[in-house]
Amino acid sequence: MSIETVLHMNTGNGESSYATNSYLQEHGIQRALHVTNEAINRMCNDLGGFPGVFKIADLGCSSGPNALLGISNIISRVHDMCNENNFEVPQFQVFLNDLFENDFNIIFRSLPTFYAKLKNGEGDHCGPCFVSAVPGSFYSRLFPNKSIHLFLSSYAVHWLSRVPQGIENNKCNIYMAKTSPTNVFEAYQKQFEKDFTKFLRLRSQEIIRGGRIVFTIPGRSISDPTSEDCCIIWELLAKSLVDMVKEGRIPESDIDSFNIPYYTPYEDEVRDVIKKEGSFLIDNLYSFALDWEPYNSDNAKMDVVDRPIRGKNTAKLIRAVIEPMMATHFGNSIMDMVFHKFEEHVVHHLSAREGRNFNLVISLTKH
Amino acid sequence: MSIETVLHMNTGNGESSYATNSYLQEHGIQRALHVTNEAINRMCNDLGGFPGVFKIADLGCSSGPNALLGISNIISRVHDMCNENNFEVPQFQVFLNDLFENDFNIIFRSLPTFYAKLKNGEGDHCGPCFVSAVPGSFYSRLFPNKSIHLFLSSYAVHWLSRVPQGIENNKCNIYMAKTSPTNVFEAYQKQFEKDFTKFLRLRSQEIIRGGRIVFTIPGRSISDPTSEDCCIIWELLAKSLVDMVKEGRIPESDIDSFNIPYYTPYEDEVRDVIKKEGSFLIDNLYSFALDWEPYNSDNAKMDVVDRPIRGKNTAKLIRAVIEPMMATHFGNSIMDMVFHKFEEHVVHHLSAREGRNFNLVISLTKH
Repeated sequence: MSIETVLHMNTGNGESSYATNSYLQEHGIQRALHVTNEAINRMCNDLGGFPGVFKIADLGCSSGPNALLGISNIISRVHDMCNENNFEVPQFQVFLNDLFENDFNIIFRSLPTFYAKLKNGEGDHCGPCFVSAVPGSFYSRLFPNKSIHLFLSSYAVHWLSRVPQGIENNKCNIYMAKTSPTNVFEAYQKQFEKDFTKFLRLRSQEIIRGGRIVFTIPGRSISDPTSEDCCIIWELLAKSLVDMVKEGRIPESDIDSFNIPYYTPYEDEVRDVIKKEGSFLIDNLYSFALDWEPYNSDNAKMDVVDRPIRGKNTAKLIRAVIEPMMATHFGNSIMDMVFHKFEEHVVHHLSAREGRNFNLVISLTKH
Repeated sequence: MSIETVLHMNTGNGESSYATNSYLQEHGIQRALHVTNEAINRMCNDLGGFPGVFKIADLGCSSGPNALLGISNIISRVHDMCNENNFEVPQFQVFLNDLFENDFNIIFRSLPTFYAKLKNGEGDHCGPCFVSAVPGSFYSRLFPNKSIHLFLSSYAVHWLSRVPQGIENNKCNIYMAKTSPTNVFEAYQKQFEKDFTKFLRLRSQEIIRGGRIVFTIPGRSISDPTSEDCCIIWELLAKSLVDMVKEGRIPESDIDSFNIPYYTPYEDEVRDVIKKEGSFLIDNLYSFALDWEPYNSDNAKMDVVDRPIRGKNTAKLIRAVIEPMMATHFGNSIMDMVFHKFEEHVVHHLSAREGRNFNLVISLTKH
């Protein structure tokens, strides 16, 4: 089965859905807003205003409340700039992209409310906005030549086009981990370099000269690929799978043959690929850390009694992201059990340390 | 409840789905192909080739196998013309439109196969094709100014934006019928004129000068609005509802307050609105009749034993189109019963007469 058919968030809007469990991504999007705003300001200055039809694509939009969050912000920012500078407000043509299996229906059903809010917020003098969906992998062409002004992507570009090859020896791990053999780190790094290069080359064909890409991904804070801020969550999930092996519920070989097609780069790796590919200049590379339970964002120590809640929420968040892929590999029937164990491991982990992930926001200009 | 939320075909691909029961529309699309081909030929001649990115929109695409049928034909025709005339093959940007509640997910899941077939059929030298979805009513703006070259629409523009007003006296009917009072015919005609005018005005803003619209709708063969080829099927469905009243299952007032937001115009009505609106010239107005059971297309008399099958198929076809709207009004629980009665009425009708509907294909140029 190709990754494209199993790589999608949990659909619908039920308890395990991505729609219900994507508040961490929402916080990340909020934290990245100022980078997007800066990119819009600069583009507007460079072009001396906005094009008559401002074409924006969100790559890997997923479904749920976050799908239109970044877009709303852009429209609002453009509108403010037009007001401040007496520019004509453009028409907006928005393209939401995700894989073929993504739940676009749920986004479409929220559009009447989105349009109504837009009209309410920006008033009738806001340029009309036309939202469409373009399904497909961002590792293939999605748009005609030079047809997009601004690409946005939040928590998507870290997904690889495939599981790196030759890492069957990543025993009892499902991602890069402290116990992974050296070749595993190399294979992941190589796959990221290949995929990210392709991503940039494809976008460079689709974007206008002077157009911008702003994307946010989870990364790691240090060069060491076993950095806790990127790996520990998957080590805890692997531990839950190992528990299942010990209980005789799945064979160990099932874990060995499962690795997540995902990469959390260090910022220098991102810079290197962008420079080597050559189509874009880096305007900004901004990083920030987010607690797994972002309501603890003032970094105050949470009370011991809150840890089970934080563990539960974190487990649900990861489940919403990874369940379709895991269910295809390990079978649907053990999912509840795996994620229950995972929750326990997360709670245990949080009793000794903070759970935090690291994020990169990169802003590029096509030259 | 607004029509936009209940006007959609039966979703999914099960026994009652539109995807499974849209062969009549498929036949209609096939019969209209030559008109689309002629429009493409003329446009190509006028423009001296094709634009670098050929932008096509299908309005009211619905879901199921027909959603991409018209588009496939256009791509194939453009490709042939480029081959014949040594033109450069354009990139295709395709916009599939239907209401917010349409099942777009099912179309998107069929896209990998569609793209693979395209590559197989037209080869690598076929320009890339980018399919997107634009949800919303075609009685509102859907696209930026002057951004579309060719609009296509099959069996959609006959749906009105609302049920005509002031027709509560259309007792025991659900559409124009022989027993309808005069004001009902007038109200339907007026609503069609208003909606179709709006449709043309909106498209005239979105289409380029010299662009084409080709659309197919069910119509009627004579001026009389009670013409059997447009009304009888709804009279039979109304009869089934009256049966339910007689059995005490629904109150008669439920039928009186239900009328289908749908209009089957006579060709002169279509011509009149187009001329009055003024943005388009009529290139072609072609009409054809289709049997309810189109496999009887050679018009040979079918055997008596086949009539129950034809009745069943026709009932399923109508159910796939109208069930969501009827279920919202009359309740889900009686749908099986209503359509069972309907099937009996259709079989009975077919024992005495042919069942046939009438279709109009209209090809327009923006001047």
